Amino acid sequence: MSIEIDYHFPAGVNAEKQAKIIAVGQTAGTWDARFSHREEALKSHLAEVVKGITQPDGSSLVTIRFPEINVENDIPSLLTMIFGKYSMAGVGKVMAVRLPDNYGRYPQVGITGIRERLNVFNRPLIMAIFKPALGLSAEDHATILQEVAGAGLDIIKDDEIMGDLDVAPTLKRLAACRRVLDKVKAETGRNVLYAVNVTGSADRLIEKARLLVREGANALLLNVLTYGFYVLDSLAADGEINVPIFAHPAFAGAICAAPNYGMAYSVVLGTLMAYGGADAVLYPAHYGSLPFEATEEGRIRDILRRRGVFPVPSAGIHPGIVPRVLADYGNDVILNAGTGIMEHPDSPAAGVKAFFEALARVKEGQSFAVDKLPDGALRRAIEKWS
Amino acid sequence: MSIEIDYHFPAGVNAEKQAKIIAVGQTAGTWDARFSHREEALKSHLAEVVKGITQPDGSSLVTIRFPEINVENDIPSLLTMIFGKYSMAGVGKVMAVRLPDNYGRYPQVGITGIRERLNVFNRPLIMAIFKPALGLSAEDHATILQEVAGAGLDIIKDDEIMGDLDVAPTLKRLAACRRVLDKVKAETGRNVLYAVNVTGSADRLIEKARLLVREGANALLLNVLTYGFYVLDSLAADGEINVPIFAHPAFAGAICAAPNYGMAYSVVLGTLMAYGGADAVLYPAHYGSLPFEATEEGRIRDILRRRGVFPVPSAGIHPGIVPRVLADYGNDVILNAGTGIMEHPDSPAAGVKAFFEALARVKEGQSFAVDKLPDGALRRAIEKWS
Repeated sequence: MSIEIDYHFPAGVNAEKQAKIIAVGQTAGTWDARFSHREEALKSHLAEVVKGITQPDGSSLVTIRFPEINVENDIPSLLTMIFGKYSMAGVGKVMAVRLPDNYGRYPQVGITGIRERLNVFNRPLIMAIFKPALGLSAEDHATILQEVAGAGLDIIKDDEIMGDLDVAPTLKRLAACRRVLDKVKAETGRNVLYAVNVTGSADRLIEKARLLVREGANALLLNVLTYGFYVLDSLAADGEINVPIFAHPAFAGAICAAPNYGMAYSVVLGTLMAYGGADAVLYPAHYGSLPFEATEEGRIRDILRRRGVFPVPSAGIHPGIVPRVLADYGNDVILNAGTGIMEHPDSPAAGVKAFFEALARVKEGQSFAVDKLPDGALRRAIEKWS
Repeated sequence: MSIEIDYHFPAGVNAEKQAKIIAVGQTAGTWDARFSHREEALKSHLAEVVKGITQPDGSSLVTIRFPEINVENDIPSLLTMIFGKYSMAGVGKVMAVRLPDNYGRYPQVGITGIRERLNVFNRPLIMAIFKPALGLSAEDHATILQEVAGAGLDIIKDDEIMGDLDVAPTLKRLAACRRVLDKVKAETGRNVLYAVNVTGSADRLIEKARLLVREGANALLLNVLTYGFYVLDSLAADGEINVPIFAHPAFAGAICAAPNYGMAYSVVLGTLMAYGGADAVLYPAHYGSLPFEATEEGRIRDILRRRGVFPVPSAGIHPGIVPRVLADYGNDVILNAGTGIMEHPDSPAAGVKAFFEALARVKEGQSFAVDKLPDGALRRAIEKWS
């Protein structure tokens, strides 16, 4: 099988010409008679324009097929080929990337593995984010975790900007939280995953990830786009790092937000993550606090699930939108809330309870209208956020 | 010192509001009375809006100052903080990043080291790119190198899309070319640098880079933006990898090309590369084949030089534009030509000679008008390209 890429050009661009520039310029390039002895090899590297469609608004969508032999079965070499130099050529956006099934990686843990580790199979998972993002002590984190884990939370994660700071070392935070996870396990039998933000420079990140896992991290969070797909690949490939990797979308807008430049969100947060080794991927939900298209969100969901990767619609998620999320996603979704849990008017524990009440009401087909809700955590959440 | 970032918002955006969202949302976030005991620590992480200017066209430029304690003295954590989640918030572009001098890295080799290794101190350097990009054998590469190195070339590099392919292994290419480099050294005493494209997945890239250096690679090429600044940092930090790292701009357009999204080219190819550990940085020249603004090119040049990093204006460089490049750059520039050398009407060797003729003519203040040029490589080049 081969690699097929859809490029979009706005009206006014000679898409046919651009497609040829890509097919030649991003592969073998041109050659003259001096290389006639290598003609066959040179041709075997050329890409091919498969299709060009002019759309009703005058814009064009062209499909180009690249030979697999040009790349190294990973995301970095793929990006260099499909949009390396050409990204600087002017207007044009990568809308879809179709890869052979055996390209890149499948998740090591994925939907199935995350459910097995939690022993939760028949409902969406509830996930929280430590807030405030910076400025808490390790013990503050443990206190918060105790509250939300005690209320039934499945997963918690560091905020993506919480690194391994002098004033807040990751290992110290993990140690304090690990004691809470062990306590919850002992008292309730429940596993709670804590996705620890793995950071670091100068080739020490992988080593640190191994250390975190040895010290009890049962999940990792990675800012894939600021550290690079190479780092995701390295974590996923590592035999010692046998915990799910949660991919954070930080910086995705720098590549995806412009209408006619860069790459579609569904390519970066869908395809590249799903073939890059992520076990679960966070991305903006269209009902949330960031501008995001429902169709693009749907594409990401489907692309991730086809590879067994857990979709995690995020940003602005609160208990009031659970009916909409479940209508779009069904059970295989992680409901990820930051302030939507941590800033519940009563407490973070009430925030978690509100989500579980919401799940139960959806299951029973009950109304979310405030006046129909019994007193309790969900009603208080709806009063605040809906 | 602190970290200052300039964000640009088009007319119609409430820049003051957005600036506050960034200053809080990209740092500590919000908190309530429960965290009053941590008030001081929380506040120490907040960013501060320093300045906001409304420009004549109605657009705004706001400057935000971030605490250094929030990041890990590297590029990935910096990107997560200044534009991580916020990149997905809508329209807005990072126009400038000002870092403390001691942030990140200085180049290990840089302008001074590259000149020392070549023993060339008082003129621009001439660099070529192997073309065609894919489809040649290792011996083809050696033949080409013999030709251009024999003609006085200073540096050659792999095309950025030439990876370590089954049909063209990097080590084999290096071995064939290394023999040529040794021969040139023995015959002429001249060193020629060959920037070998370093690629690889699953945490093996650094190991491969070490192997390449052991096998005689005297420079490396890295697609920094597709592999990640983490990889650049890892290469620069490695004690065994004591060769200059040439940073390629592949994929930069995906982040930089849109007018109102992402980050300016001068941030990504200037500041981030200069503080990220690159020794020389390639970027489009405004007189070349890619659309690029002269002011942005000038910014990149100045930012790189301030850190001792070699500027390498590229893409569409041919001997006819040497006078313009030298007027803009003076001596400390690497003139990097692909087809501008390899597709010289006579031969690649003539392509190299044409560049040296051009340097000599500029030095003597002589005209580049075709009818003023003596017969020879430069005239033939000008006839083709000017």
